[in-house]
Amino acid sequence: MDLKELGEFGLIRRIAEGIGVPAGVTGIGDDCAVLPQRDGRVTLVSTDMLMDGVHFILDEASPCELGWKSAAVNLSDVAAMGGKPVGTFLAFALPPGLGSAWVDAFMRGYKEISAACGAPLLGGDTTGSKDRLCVCVTVLGECAAGAEVLRSGARPGDLVCVTGPLGDAAAGLQVVLGGLPRGADEAALVARHYRPRPRVAEGQALAAAGATAMMDISDGIGSDLRHLLEASGVGARIRVADLPVSAELRRCARKYGWDVEKLAIDGGEDYELLFTMPPAAEAGLDVPHTVIGEITDGRKPEWAGSGADHAGYHHF
Amino acid sequence: MDLKELGEFGLIRRIAEGIGVPAGVTGIGDDCAVLPQRDGRVTLVSTDMLMDGVHFILDEASPCELGWKSAAVNLSDVAAMGGKPVGTFLAFALPPGLGSAWVDAFMRGYKEISAACGAPLLGGDTTGSKDRLCVCVTVLGECAAGAEVLRSGARPGDLVCVTGPLGDAAAGLQVVLGGLPRGADEAALVARHYRPRPRVAEGQALAAAGATAMMDISDGIGSDLRHLLEASGVGARIRVADLPVSAELRRCARKYGWDVEKLAIDGGEDYELLFTMPPAAEAGLDVPHTVIGEITDGRKPEWAGSGADHAGYHHF
Repeated sequence: MDLKELGEFGLIRRIAEGIGVPAGVTGIGDDCAVLPQRDGRVTLVSTDMLMDGVHFILDEASPCELGWKSAAVNLSDVAAMGGKPVGTFLAFALPPGLGSAWVDAFMRGYKEISAACGAPLLGGDTTGSKDRLCVCVTVLGECAAGAEVLRSGARPGDLVCVTGPLGDAAAGLQVVLGGLPRGADEAALVARHYRPRPRVAEGQALAAAGATAMMDISDGIGSDLRHLLEASGVGARIRVADLPVSAELRRCARKYGWDVEKLAIDGGEDYELLFTMPPAAEAGLDVPHTVIGEITDGRKPEWAGSGADHAGYHHF
Repeated sequence: MDLKELGEFGLIRRIAEGIGVPAGVTGIGDDCAVLPQRDGRVTLVSTDMLMDGVHFILDEASPCELGWKSAAVNLSDVAAMGGKPVGTFLAFALPPGLGSAWVDAFMRGYKEISAACGAPLLGGDTTGSKDRLCVCVTVLGECAAGAEVLRSGARPGDLVCVTGPLGDAAAGLQVVLGGLPRGADEAALVARHYRPRPRVAEGQALAAAGATAMMDISDGIGSDLRHLLEASGVGARIRVADLPVSAELRRCARKYGWDVEKLAIDGGEDYELLFTMPPAAEAGLDVPHTVIGEITDGRKPEWAGSGADHAGYHHF
């Protein structure tokens, strides 16, 4: 079967078949795997691969920003469980023509965001490549056992919230791909695309405040919310008008005729946290966030105020 | 600077610069990173990347064997610390044209060796690639704190030993690349190339028996021994005539005119364990092994009975 037909999640289901995951371990399917330790804590582990030609265009990406983003997208997965990052592991296959200056710049960005998140680089693999650069990062995190926030805990009546504006990263990519002039607004959007800030402190605070389900928005909320709802066995009613959109994106959208709703819902890589929380817990919440809807006892997301079916990014 | 000039280990030194590794954590530089847990155990972590065109040729590799090897080379890193593998994480970038049958076959090999080593697949990342297949595996293991065997513990007077024959995997690659007819001997060598068996039980037994330094032989003992000696700040005298070589390799070498010494010393990917141990501990050792020399208070390996300078595989 063609992978386009099978889809990323059909493929993952096939890969997961017949694996004997020990009792108490959460394996494939959430932002991180969860491995219990003997002392009442758990280790969180996640891996992401970035490939030249798919996730970035080597000739166009600044190595410093690519290093930043490679670390950030993984650190974000630990944030999405409410965990504290412990360290990262970096593997890359370097094509001919990339010298030590390129690696130094890549590592500068990588180390800057890693240090900001308290997660030192602890190991990895360096190897050659015939042509394509490939980068793969694995992150380890930890939290108290039972404190990890999975995608599966959303319950009818919970509020659906996000930690920040949506669509900026996708708009930043439009600026890059379109070669648009970089005014202050455009530059801010491009920075959101290249230098996402994992919501590590926010994730831990949300876990402590009683978030029932959480994940980071990597493929676009249209696709990511669907996964959260499936994992929780619930539905949601989202008010499209309440989706937080930055002033920069609104101004650029007017200027260039972009579809703000499409960027905010189907555009990926914002790395904000999507979480659910009972109204009583949300009422006292000290973390910046926007309520965008409620969990229902349905099975699907309903985008109130939109005519479109929002499905997000497809990997194949 | 060109990476060829800098070299793999120069590059790793640059990458490791300025990273604040917490006290008690072993970061970059051994087979695995070592992270202390609160309960007197440590977590071991290692990552390896395999790239089409460098580590394998996609059109020639059987997906099942590629899956096996991708898992095995990582599990071997935990074995090389004397650890018990806990689980693995698999990321791959799949080019167009590889369908679900290919993935199923890959996963069959991956799961077979993983199950044999007691390490379930616990997570990962699947994504698309424009053309090249890239596979990256991260393995987690554990052992009692202080029981991990680093590369740095070899002391003058220790014996230098290996767990099995050397050069078979490199010879198997010759069979594949040369398109040689596959008699029983050739097939055995090819199997050693495609289906290495991580010495997991052996590694744990050697750690318990008092191995002072240990690593797996991935780049070739000529190169790998040098790393162990550098990490330990010692030298070694190796008796080339005592290097274990399989009967299959000896017969094929006669048949095809191969240089057995070169294959055994410079040929990589055997994934046997190279370890050092005081003579008193070795005397009662219950793990199959061959003593090939002694640690000296020099700084370099001396290959007694060989004229060549053995340097092993270069990654760039």
